[in-house]
Amino acid sequence: MNTRITSLFGIDYPIIQAGMIWCSGWQLAAAVSNAGGLGLLGAGSMTPEVLEEQIRKCKAATNKPFGVNIPLLYSQVEKQFEILFREGINIVFTSAGNPAIWTPLLKQHGLTVVHVIASVKSALKCEQYGVDAIVAEGFEAGGHNGKEETTTFALVPLIRKTTPLPLIAAGGIATGRGMLAAMALGADGVQVGSRFAASEESSAHPAFKQKIVDSGDGDTFVALKKVVPVRLIRNSFFHQVRQMEESGASAEKLTELLGKGRAKNGMFEGNTEEGELEIGQVAALIDRIQPAGEIVREIMEEYTLIRKTLP
Amino acid sequence: MNTRITSLFGIDYPIIQAGMIWCSGWQLAAAVSNAGGLGLLGAGSMTPEVLEEQIRKCKAATNKPFGVNIPLLYSQVEKQFEILFREGINIVFTSAGNPAIWTPLLKQHGLTVVHVIASVKSALKCEQYGVDAIVAEGFEAGGHNGKEETTTFALVPLIRKTTPLPLIAAGGIATGRGMLAAMALGADGVQVGSRFAASEESSAHPAFKQKIVDSGDGDTFVALKKVVPVRLIRNSFFHQVRQMEESGASAEKLTELLGKGRAKNGMFEGNTEEGELEIGQVAALIDRIQPAGEIVREIMEEYTLIRKTLP
Repeated sequence: MNTRITSLFGIDYPIIQAGMIWCSGWQLAAAVSNAGGLGLLGAGSMTPEVLEEQIRKCKAATNKPFGVNIPLLYSQVEKQFEILFREGINIVFTSAGNPAIWTPLLKQHGLTVVHVIASVKSALKCEQYGVDAIVAEGFEAGGHNGKEETTTFALVPLIRKTTPLPLIAAGGIATGRGMLAAMALGADGVQVGSRFAASEESSAHPAFKQKIVDSGDGDTFVALKKVVPVRLIRNSFFHQVRQMEESGASAEKLTELLGKGRAKNGMFEGNTEEGELEIGQVAALIDRIQPAGEIVREIMEEYTLIRKTLP
Repeated sequence: MNTRITSLFGIDYPIIQAGMIWCSGWQLAAAVSNAGGLGLLGAGSMTPEVLEEQIRKCKAATNKPFGVNIPLLYSQVEKQFEILFREGINIVFTSAGNPAIWTPLLKQHGLTVVHVIASVKSALKCEQYGVDAIVAEGFEAGGHNGKEETTTFALVPLIRKTTPLPLIAAGGIATGRGMLAAMALGADGVQVGSRFAASEESSAHPAFKQKIVDSGDGDTFVALKKVVPVRLIRNSFFHQVRQMEESGASAEKLTELLGKGRAKNGMFEGNTEEGELEIGQVAALIDRIQPAGEIVREIMEEYTLIRKTLP
């Protein structure tokens, strides 16, 4: 398949595996890249030392292109960029922050820069600061979420209308049907998170993977809107947050409840009741844990099949 | 075009015009039906007498099939059904309620019954009580909204997987791209609301239509979750609600603020600051007021064009 996204990265299929905290280590990224998609390491849950080690292991496991996702709000972001430069990484996805600050430096070092956005306003900033491609992520996506709550169905055509930049749709996409719908809405490729979070090669705790598989309709929700909106599985922790929110708790009180290390505790250590379990609505469609390469192949097969049967 | 939805209703294109309160009178419904889609009268804002008059005018204005949308929670629902029987209406869309109570009676009278749902649980109820087709409406839709907040992108394939019933996707669909994406996700047809609310034949106040055209990304929001979730344009009324909600106001206090007739005041009488303006996220994509028949034709043209260019 040929789209502006396959050309930009030199890959076979326009399927990007999201660089998710606590899920996206070298085993997952290498498996997706080896299957013809683009694997991403999720640096948001890695110290600079761990990131360096993960990059080296990923290089040893694949000769195909792969990239790194770096959330710009994290404290050690400058050290992480230095590692990318030193290791000769040439694809970076930045998220959770303003592309104005870091994009010029990343471009100076010759990297292809993709930025994750959830609004028209942010898409225009990407264009202004020289970002190479955009991930437009809808309200249904897991983890951090835009304040506008614009869904993938509304967001993708809006961003397509706003800017000519190559466009990757994210949020709600786990299957070939989802990929085909995203392309119909104007995307050049897709970013898939939840289904890869539940893959065999994901570094998530097995108990979290099982929670994804067990999730049904209505089992995820966006919480902590006064702090930073995040889509979570409804567990004990979620219900505590919800109760406080409904009685009008302040951002400070909510931040105090959140504390430190909740996502690690839930997603990596497997505390599925008290941890923060970041996952997308599309978890409801995911019903088994599979090898990541098989997921890439199934998405492409379903895409081709459904494309033929469209009325 | 041939799908299970065109066959079910005997129409040319699987495009349903939503039966929206204060927007969907006989002029709009007849225009859409005459253009080859399915027009619906929105009985939710009509007394039984007004509904009877609207049906008669609609019959005079088109020889094509049209239907009526009846929200089941409204107080005069039984009288409205009697009018449908007396007038020989044979397509009814029911919404905002439980299909168990009325479907058997409607089927006894030979009507084709379509029910609007926003969750897997409600889809299963539709199947159980003999509903003929389902509208699956995502979180991006205007007006009343499901508590699960499942978006069109996540909901449509979930419902497709849940039941073999003919499936109409709703929420976020205003263009040929949107229709194509909905079909890719597994729908047999689409229901379009916001774009028709802003059409020439819509009975909405011109000031409300202009608000739809002027709306951009992030300008609608779901409010009143403690009462009944509803997607609105962010205006003075919305901000009052928002402020009360953030400080933990009860359902009673919110219902008191809402009062009576807010939707009529905003959508029909044109009080765009103090009224309740129900519209979908996709308002951000709508940039002009057009004849409804032209909208049907543009959607079909774009559908055919984009379908050909899919990679």
